[in-house]
Amino acid sequence: MRELATPNDTKILLCVVDGLGGLPDSVTHRSELEEASLPNLNHLTADSECGLTIPVGYGITPGSGPGHLALFGYDPIRYQVGRGVLESLGIDFDLQRSDVAARGNFCTLDGQEWITDRRAGRVATNVNAAICDRLRKIKLPGVEVFVEPVREHRFVLVLRGEGLDDHLASTDPEREGVEPHPARATTPEAQPTAGLINEFVKQARAVMKDERQANGMLLRGFAKYPDLPSMPEVTQMRAGAFAVYPMYRGLAKLAGMTVSAGGGTQASQLEALKSRWNDFDFFFYHFKRADAAGEDGNFRAKVEALEEFDELVPPLRELGADVLMIAGDHSTPAQLAGHSWHPVPFLLNSHLGTTDDIDEFNEAHCRRGSLGTFPAKEVLSLAMAHAGRLVKYGA
Amino acid sequence: MRELATPNDTKILLCVVDGLGGLPDSVTHRSELEEASLPNLNHLTADSECGLTIPVGYGITPGSGPGHLALFGYDPIRYQVGRGVLESLGIDFDLQRSDVAARGNFCTLDGQEWITDRRAGRVATNVNAAICDRLRKIKLPGVEVFVEPVREHRFVLVLRGEGLDDHLASTDPEREGVEPHPARATTPEAQPTAGLINEFVKQARAVMKDERQANGMLLRGFAKYPDLPSMPEVTQMRAGAFAVYPMYRGLAKLAGMTVSAGGGTQASQLEALKSRWNDFDFFFYHFKRADAAGEDGNFRAKVEALEEFDELVPPLRELGADVLMIAGDHSTPAQLAGHSWHPVPFLLNSHLGTTDDIDEFNEAHCRRGSLGTFPAKEVLSLAMAHAGRLVKYGA
Repeated sequence: MRELATPNDTKILLCVVDGLGGLPDSVTHRSELEEASLPNLNHLTADSECGLTIPVGYGITPGSGPGHLALFGYDPIRYQVGRGVLESLGIDFDLQRSDVAARGNFCTLDGQEWITDRRAGRVATNVNAAICDRLRKIKLPGVEVFVEPVREHRFVLVLRGEGLDDHLASTDPEREGVEPHPARATTPEAQPTAGLINEFVKQARAVMKDERQANGMLLRGFAKYPDLPSMPEVTQMRAGAFAVYPMYRGLAKLAGMTVSAGGGTQASQLEALKSRWNDFDFFFYHFKRADAAGEDGNFRAKVEALEEFDELVPPLRELGADVLMIAGDHSTPAQLAGHSWHPVPFLLNSHLGTTDDIDEFNEAHCRRGSLGTFPAKEVLSLAMAHAGRLVKYGA
Repeated sequence: MRELATPNDTKILLCVVDGLGGLPDSVTHRSELEEASLPNLNHLTADSECGLTIPVGYGITPGSGPGHLALFGYDPIRYQVGRGVLESLGIDFDLQRSDVAARGNFCTLDGQEWITDRRAGRVATNVNAAICDRLRKIKLPGVEVFVEPVREHRFVLVLRGEGLDDHLASTDPEREGVEPHPARATTPEAQPTAGLINEFVKQARAVMKDERQANGMLLRGFAKYPDLPSMPEVTQMRAGAFAVYPMYRGLAKLAGMTVSAGGGTQASQLEALKSRWNDFDFFFYHFKRADAAGEDGNFRAKVEALEEFDELVPPLRELGADVLMIAGDHSTPAQLAGHSWHPVPFLLNSHLGTTDDIDEFNEAHCRRGSLGTFPAKEVLSLAMAHAGRLVKYGA
């Protein structure tokens, strides 16, 4: 793509409806998209090319990281983002290239240091925050230490300094009735980092010794900032991200996009998008609610979330992008109350596109679309082609 | 897959109808599957997700080896099984890891040692067997020699011993009126093995010198036992194979499956499957007759074979697998009287699956299914997803 990308004055708008795809309800045999009233999406569908995207591979259920990276044009198998990094992004932690981040769980240990609860009874978030305040005071030689609460028993540990290495095995034995593992380097180069982690855990034990629930910790997903090629550089597009939730803002940042000022509501996100329309060529617009409802296993709430997104379609169309796409990072069927591997409805609207004799935006109709069922990592090149941003390959 | 596989108590049943797919008859324009009366398969189809599998690649006609390995989750381009090994599996020869096997043809040589018939007039199998008996007595330094008849002019030669190497070129010049090639090493390490083969051929010439037809031999497909990752280990599933024919039992063994006691009829194969239902998580059930009829170019016999398989569907469903699949290793259209490259009907039945508004199991209907046309090597991950046996990829 780097060799074929060429500048143009066209604009591409990628709308990601998180957890877009679903499954038929066992009673009505209609999926969330089929059940929802989506006049604007259906109208757009009649004007568009449709298909289904496979986020990572057949049968592979993606997390948010690979689901989004694929839509940003990365091969999600080749470019992996460690859990420590994703967790840091999720709390808007400003991760640096020298950092090693880990996902932490507070746990409960008994008198012999054996784990009795791997999640410390899902300790209250404010207790977690108070413990993190105290752990943050731990000093390690030559590195800075960051300890940030996430929610309940989950926190993030970040070490910052030169020469840190993330080739470390998890300290979580993944069962109770045994001691946590010490941090262990999986390459010789990571030995010093393992030593620092073990020193941190030792000091932390002392800090937490009087806690009733959260008196120990398990660390996993040690990871450094991934070395992704910059999407704006590869594609020669100025890329702006408009997302409310930290995780998606973080993923866009990893890809090299400019992330607009965060927080706020769907309305303010749309306003931000409008106000920056002249500043970018590629726009990533993230809509979260569909995934959250699917994760809760709430079919009705997911239907409503999709209907809410439908109301955003007219203002999004009014922006006048040369290429407008509606995509999902993965399916989140309410039936499964979680992410799934099922191919995800996809739509591409462009004056260079064809249309498909389809006028409903859902799994069954998109399957019959002209784009077929195809890997999500191909979405970006498809969009660039429709935007006149790829030159001919070969003579 | 190794990283994502997770244990569960679900069961997966893969039924391989050998040579399943076909082509429309030139008169009726209906394929074997369309012509057959398949009430049970059609009923199952209405409840399932369907598609077409591509065994190896567009336009690539697979042998039984790659056709099956793909359905067992192996990339059939990356993992190849040499002809010598396949031929050994086909006669139930107990191949060891130290063996080098070759496919042999008896041929006819004239007084100058020139080939006059590359197949020795398709010599009778009993003559072949008698010659093999005599060849088996040949002694080579440091290795054991096995010579096993297959059928007509075909036999298998196996050398067993330490340090044998299969990097040897065929001795078959593939035309008549010239001498057979000597065995030639294609790497320096294979030099000693080439020497042993040439010594064997020399002694064999003496043994066979008075034969009228089969007085020479051509050797090709030199191969060692392939080093395949163990499917049960990679997938964390206990895997059992239920197949009557040696070739398919052998392929399952290569994949690391436990092969049930062989021989017998379709009925006894089904009984064996039932009686071992508690012993495995993954079951490979092989049905041969459709391929044999297709190979014979007998449209009617293939229709009947498919109808015979249809009668097996109710007892197979009654086993209650969480994921039941009907697949083919390749198409064998009676029209072509041989294997072909055509995508193969596929069906996956699971309570986590969707359904496709299709109620006939054949090429034209499966093409419209939600699984689309996809590589056969993805079948296993798809099945594992539906069986709750793959964790999420990335966070």
